[in-house]
Parts: sequence; C-alpha cells; structure tokens
Amino acid sequence: MLEPGRFITLEGGEGAGKSTQARRLANALAATGRAVLRTREPGGTPGAERIRDLLLGHGPWDPVAEAMLHFAARREHLVKTIRPFLAIGGWVISDRFADSTLAYQGAQGLPRAVWARLAEVALDGFAPDVTLVLDMAPEAGMARAAARSGADRYERMGLDFHARVRAGFLTIAQAEPGRCAVVDAAGGADQVFAGIAGVLRERLGVGL
Amino acid sequence: MLEPGRFITLEGGEGAGKSTQARRLANALAATGRAVLRTREPGGTPGAERIRDLLLGHGPWDPVAEAMLHFAARREHLVKTIRPFLAIGGWVISDRFADSTLAYQGAQGLPRAVWARLAEVALDGFAPDVTLVLDMAPEAGMARAAARSGADRYERMGLDFHARVRAGFLTIAQAEPGRCAVVDAAGGADQVFAGIAGVLRERLGVGL
Repeated sequence: MLEPGRFITLEGGEGAGKSTQARRLANALAATGRAVLRTREPGGTPGAERIRDLLLGHGPWDPVAEAMLHFAARREHLVKTIRPFLAIGGWVISDRFADSTLAYQGAQGLPRAVWARLAEVALDGFAPDVTLVLDMAPEAGMARAAARSGADRYERMGLDFHARVRAGFLTIAQAEPGRCAVVDAAGGADQVFAGIAGVLRERLGVGL
Repeated sequence: MLEPGRFITLEGGEGAGKSTQARRLANALAATGRAVLRTREPGGTPGAERIRDLLLGHGPWDPVAEAMLHFAARREHLVKTIRPFLAIGGWVISDRFADSTLAYQGAQGLPRAVWARLAEVALDGFAPDVTLVLDMAPEAGMARAAARSGADRYERMGLDFHARVRAGFLTIAQAEPGRCAVVDAAGGADQVFAGIAGVLRERLGVGL
C-alpha cells in the first residue's frame, strides 16, 4: 500500500533558518527513499511566483488586498502543486504557508477574522500535517538576515514589527499544538535540524 | 453643501459598448460642472493594473485564485481611487465592477457563495449607487468585439459561455432592481446613451 503523502511547513521570522532547514529536511527525507518536493511561499507555481513578484516588488498594498494576493498565490500552489504531489504519495516541504500570512499581515493590523475567511475560501479545511515553527529572538534573526545581501521589505522593518511577528507565530503554535511544534532556532544548523528530526520522529514516526 | 459623490458602474458582455458609453457619460457629467473620474476594472490603481496584467496575460488560473486576484485588485481600486474621489464629492464612472466577477467567473463555475464571501471581505457592504447593465444578444456583441483588434481571452470563448455571462448579468439586475438598470445596448451609440441618460435622470435626478 502506498504510504500517504505528507505536508510539512516551516514557519518563523527573518533569519530563523527556514530555507536552510527546508533543504536539509528535503534531502534527509529523500535519502530514506521518499518522493520529496521542496517548495516555498509565496510561490510554488509559475502564476504564484508572478504574484510573489507583485507582493515583494511593488506596493505598499492595502492590507486586505495584500492578504488576498497571498491567498490567491496559495490557492494556485495548493491546487496545482501541493495536492497533486500528495496524491501520488509524495512529501511536500514548504518554506512558509498560511501561518506566515497571519503572523506577518496580522503584525501590520490585518484582522484575524479576515485572514480566517480567506483561508476558508482558499484552503477549504486543508492544513499541513506538521508545522515546524522555527523560533528565535528577533534581534538575533535580524542580525542573521542582515548578513545576507539584499534586505527585502520585511527585513527593513523595525524590531517592534518582528517581535509582533514572533508573538504571532507562538500564538498560532499554542492554539494548534497538534499541528505545530516550536523548534528553538537560536543554535547552529545541526542543532536545529536535530530538533526538527525529533519532532518528525515523534509526530510522523520518521527516522532521519 | 457639497453634493455627495456618486459611484456609477457599467456592466455587460463583450461588445456591449461599455467603454464608449463610459466615456460619453463621463464627458456629459463633466459638462454639468461635476468632478468626474472615469476608471475601469480590473485596474484603476498602479497595483491593480499590474494584477490586471496577470489576469489577462497569464493563466489559466484556478477559478478561486482568479476570483481572489479580481477582488485584490478591486480592494486596491476601492480604497485608493474610488473612496477618496467620492469623499471629495466626485462622480466615479467605472467600466466593470464586482458584478463582472460574478457573471464571468460564475459562467466558468465559480460558486456564488465564494464570490459573496470575497465581496464581503473586499467591499464590506460598499456598492455602486447605480449599475447600468448594457444588454445585448451575445451573437451581436461578439461580432462587434471581433471587429476590434486583438481579441482577449474572453473574446475567444464560445457563444455558450457568453450566453451564460449575459444570463448572469440579467439575474443580478433582477435580484437588485434598486441598484441595477438594464439598458438595451443593441442600438446605435446615441440611442444607448439616451437610455443611460434616462436612467440617471430617474434614479439620480441628473439632467444630461
């Protein structure tokens, strides 16, 4: 019998190491013989990547319009990439998903009820099997992000904003402990990955 | 006392003459001394025009994603162009608005409930003062549209589709007779404009 596909998301603020850990996780899962797709949001389909360009390269957008653009991209991603890959038993690892819209747009004043209505329309109850919330103090995350070239719009925002984003992610994790696991992202990449592997062993019975 | 601003939308299928009539209406209102803004959807702000480019130049989009893109553009248009102009007593004439999303995406299978939830999030009860539904047989409209250069995606779709779009607009007009007026668009431009002027005299007390 085909092992069911799994959808794992990595969430967290700037500089938390999501991309690095998503790559490590995808490689480690592929090494066990699973079919693995690593993807990201906003993006993951040609159309969604074009929406990403609008979101990151233009604006400022009205907060509700911005959330709608995120969910339009997410709907494309879900319907054209994530669901088809899960349907053939694949494992999908996404660098960000719906929680990021709530944490980031929420930190800019988007009402939770607006997010929830858009999530309902776009996702219709679909949710990740496991969400890894990579958590670290925003000061440290910003320092890491600043060491990369080309700070984007969010990376240029102040510490207050990033503290609200962090609090947003922790609130989500607390409200949905069955789906979310908070992983301390302050340490080195090996240490963080060990934390992720521990979560997946416990939640999905995967040995990495 | 400042006369309140008014929001007038023109709706209808391909080749019904919306753009021509929007221009005539804007000119005639401006000639009475009113401040008039002629705009269009999708579009009406720099960001919304970029979303328009995605909608018309790319795809096919998932139907729900497509509706979200339309409402993201509409939200921008409402918040940054329409409401500010109405607030200073201006008259806004828009070539298409939310009814077009219901008629066109509905004709492709978008559930009305999805449209309604997105409209609620994006518009929060806002609606045009008067919607002019320019109605004509799709055969005649398509022939007119074909005479223009560069048929777009919708213009290349079949007569069945355009018959559903027409039925969609007429259903909307029937459901909201206080807002909508159906104008016979089969005649010449002068005759159609006379119909529009009659509606505005009756509904808004405007002599054009």
